[in-house]
Amino acid sequence: MEQHSRTDAYTDRYAARAAGMVASEIRALFAVASRPEVVSLAGGMPYVSALPLDAVGEMVGELVARNGSEVLQYASAQGDPALRERICEVMALEGVQASADDVVVTVGAQQALDLITRIFVDPGDVVLAEAPSYVGALGTFASYQAEVVHVPLDEGGLIPSALRETLERLRREGRRVKFLYTVPTFQNPAGVTLTPARRAQVLEICARYDVLVIEDNPYGLLGFDGEPMRALRADDAERVIYLGSFSKTIASGLRVGWALAPHAVRAKLVLAAESAILCHPSFSQFAVREYLSTHPWREQIKDFRELYRERRDAMLEALEAMMPEGCTWTRPAGGFFVWLTLPEGLDAKAMAPRAIAERVAYVPGTGFYSDGSGHRHMRLSYCYPEPHRIREGVRRLAAVVEQEIRLRDTFGGVRASAPGGVDTPGPGVI
Amino acid sequence: MEQHSRTDAYTDRYAARAAGMVASEIRALFAVASRPEVVSLAGGMPYVSALPLDAVGEMVGELVARNGSEVLQYASAQGDPALRERICEVMALEGVQASADDVVVTVGAQQALDLITRIFVDPGDVVLAEAPSYVGALGTFASYQAEVVHVPLDEGGLIPSALRETLERLRREGRRVKFLYTVPTFQNPAGVTLTPARRAQVLEICARYDVLVIEDNPYGLLGFDGEPMRALRADDAERVIYLGSFSKTIASGLRVGWALAPHAVRAKLVLAAESAILCHPSFSQFAVREYLSTHPWREQIKDFRELYRERRDAMLEALEAMMPEGCTWTRPAGGFFVWLTLPEGLDAKAMAPRAIAERVAYVPGTGFYSDGSGHRHMRLSYCYPEPHRIREGVRRLAAVVEQEIRLRDTFGGVRASAPGGVDTPGPGVI
Repeated sequence: MEQHSRTDAYTDRYAARAAGMVASEIRALFAVASRPEVVSLAGGMPYVSALPLDAVGEMVGELVARNGSEVLQYASAQGDPALRERICEVMALEGVQASADDVVVTVGAQQALDLITRIFVDPGDVVLAEAPSYVGALGTFASYQAEVVHVPLDEGGLIPSALRETLERLRREGRRVKFLYTVPTFQNPAGVTLTPARRAQVLEICARYDVLVIEDNPYGLLGFDGEPMRALRADDAERVIYLGSFSKTIASGLRVGWALAPHAVRAKLVLAAESAILCHPSFSQFAVREYLSTHPWREQIKDFRELYRERRDAMLEALEAMMPEGCTWTRPAGGFFVWLTLPEGLDAKAMAPRAIAERVAYVPGTGFYSDGSGHRHMRLSYCYPEPHRIREGVRRLAAVVEQEIRLRDTFGGVRASAPGGVDTPGPGVI
Repeated sequence: MEQHSRTDAYTDRYAARAAGMVASEIRALFAVASRPEVVSLAGGMPYVSALPLDAVGEMVGELVARNGSEVLQYASAQGDPALRERICEVMALEGVQASADDVVVTVGAQQALDLITRIFVDPGDVVLAEAPSYVGALGTFASYQAEVVHVPLDEGGLIPSALRETLERLRREGRRVKFLYTVPTFQNPAGVTLTPARRAQVLEICARYDVLVIEDNPYGLLGFDGEPMRALRADDAERVIYLGSFSKTIASGLRVGWALAPHAVRAKLVLAAESAILCHPSFSQFAVREYLSTHPWREQIKDFRELYRERRDAMLEALEAMMPEGCTWTRPAGGFFVWLTLPEGLDAKAMAPRAIAERVAYVPGTGFYSDGSGHRHMRLSYCYPEPHRIREGVRRLAAVVEQEIRLRDTFGGVRASAPGGVDTPGPGVI
């Protein structure tokens, strides 16, 4: 082994699963995108400054002073029982009836994804995911050497007939499908929502092909119209594993998420969690528990909804007013994201450095596919920048796209970027 | 799939690695051991009540109120840069010279162990560990289907000649050894410390056989005599990956640990961390950073040392005064644990239910071996109970052992418990 070398002298020692763990070139871009002069429509960071920070600070301070010997101590790997009761109350808003005993508290829903993949996926197993799908999930699946097979979605979410055809094909091929991973509500990155009729169909198809469903639902309470959607888990407690998170409804820096799973699976998840982290930080768990017990959290979520609705409106209006012909985009009814499709012959990944030079950032679509597609797409987030910044960002983006169209028309053909490949999620692309 | 069954209807779906994730019978015992009438010498919980809780509460409250938009937000997966600088200052106390850029903040050192195993270990790879070794590490190695090969230790820590012989044998057998996992200072569970002379020998042997060293050092600053030991990492920056933790020196409920690794390995660890949890809780990281910046943490560690020294003394004196002939035990110079060996013909695992009936709990030695041995040993913790409770616990334990000796002498032979097998660490057996 060479000493003091900056090349990777450890290459021959890594496990096979580590081969896919490579930082993509897009990361370097995001380091630039965090500069204040760049309008970032890339990150999925919630706007936590809208919280009553003085009151939350006081609450947390008292918690430590009064109850520090518990708040600062190891806890059970499953998570605090009183917090798990509160979590069940939150899920009840989406029609989910659950026992606190079937909940595991995790380091964000990301850890729930990791633990579920750990207990279910052998190398080469198939995992189904929407096309496009959450970049963090694709990274986790890749790290366990799963093969991701994408199923298309449209404005109504995952397309049931495509799901059926995919499962039928995989059955013919003798492939082992471990689960369907879906973000049915205000999807990341597409911003679309699975319709109620399709929810029933998806559950029926998964039952027929005996496939588990991982329902990832971090945005479910952030809808802009009417009552929360009924969760898939509300209609099938044995087949659906539900993942939730307080990252978007309270604060992402606490890293409190959870999995609700059938009892036997929950037991395995707790053992996997112990092996992974021993136990979740009590410090965060008690903060969330106290917040849910003493603060008007439903009103706070309503405030967040209004804030994000205003930003969604700003983005949609700006896109409508400024984007060149040939661009199309989704119209989310909640959550954080708009999914934009460029005119034929443009490549969002190749265009990204030029966009950043023009002081606007987005996530190229390629990160949301495991199969190297997605070049014509990009994810635009409206959750973090203020409305005037969103408008300015879209203005800059529209100018870049116009320039690209002119280049295409002058020189012809597609200047395609290199094939995608899955990136693990940096903080910029959550 | 059967509905509403409490048996595991998911058995056929799990990954191969999940087969080993089974809760041991010892868990049920520990649920009982947490009752107040039981003196628990089982848990490895630090005595966090010794912290200035009012001051820490005030500090945390101000942190959120003043800086909530950062404290409550997603952060980089590597961890806060200023915290990583502080971590380097802490390691400098053990002679470690490191750049903050080579540190990754993890959810306790447990997560560092998990991530290291994830990037290095393929199923069937060999990992070397002391006999006995930390139960949480053995659980993690098992969950990645590593084969653990134990190397004996004595009062001076890991025995270099045994390490050499083991490596020579494995080389002859053509086995792939990924790393040596060691807790060189105030070992968990044995309470012994690797001597300075042996440190040099262990590094020299690992260099000769080209084996990485994982140095797990959560107790290094909790020595009762003189200056901290020089870390293995201080003398080999390319071969040693150092794991540290604030769980024992500040507070376990924050779950702030770290890995210091060669640059290329650190980069892989960050990618693995993103896949596992996206990022570590900022809430905890900022609390530790602020504590290290504003509180007299060196004095607080000194207070902890005095507190644990008093408890260690109470335990050693009580053992000396009360344990029946034929029992032997280690005399730790720091840390949390005494390792006790029972007379021939006694079985600490079989005895555990009887001890709990007599209101004293310990961890049977079997949990600290991957090979089913350890029946004559037990781990006794002195970190959490107050001295008078430690004395009372040892009094009860001595009575149980005496009774066992009488039974052995009356009925003869060994009433052996079932072979061990690795348990993942519940909160009771940290």
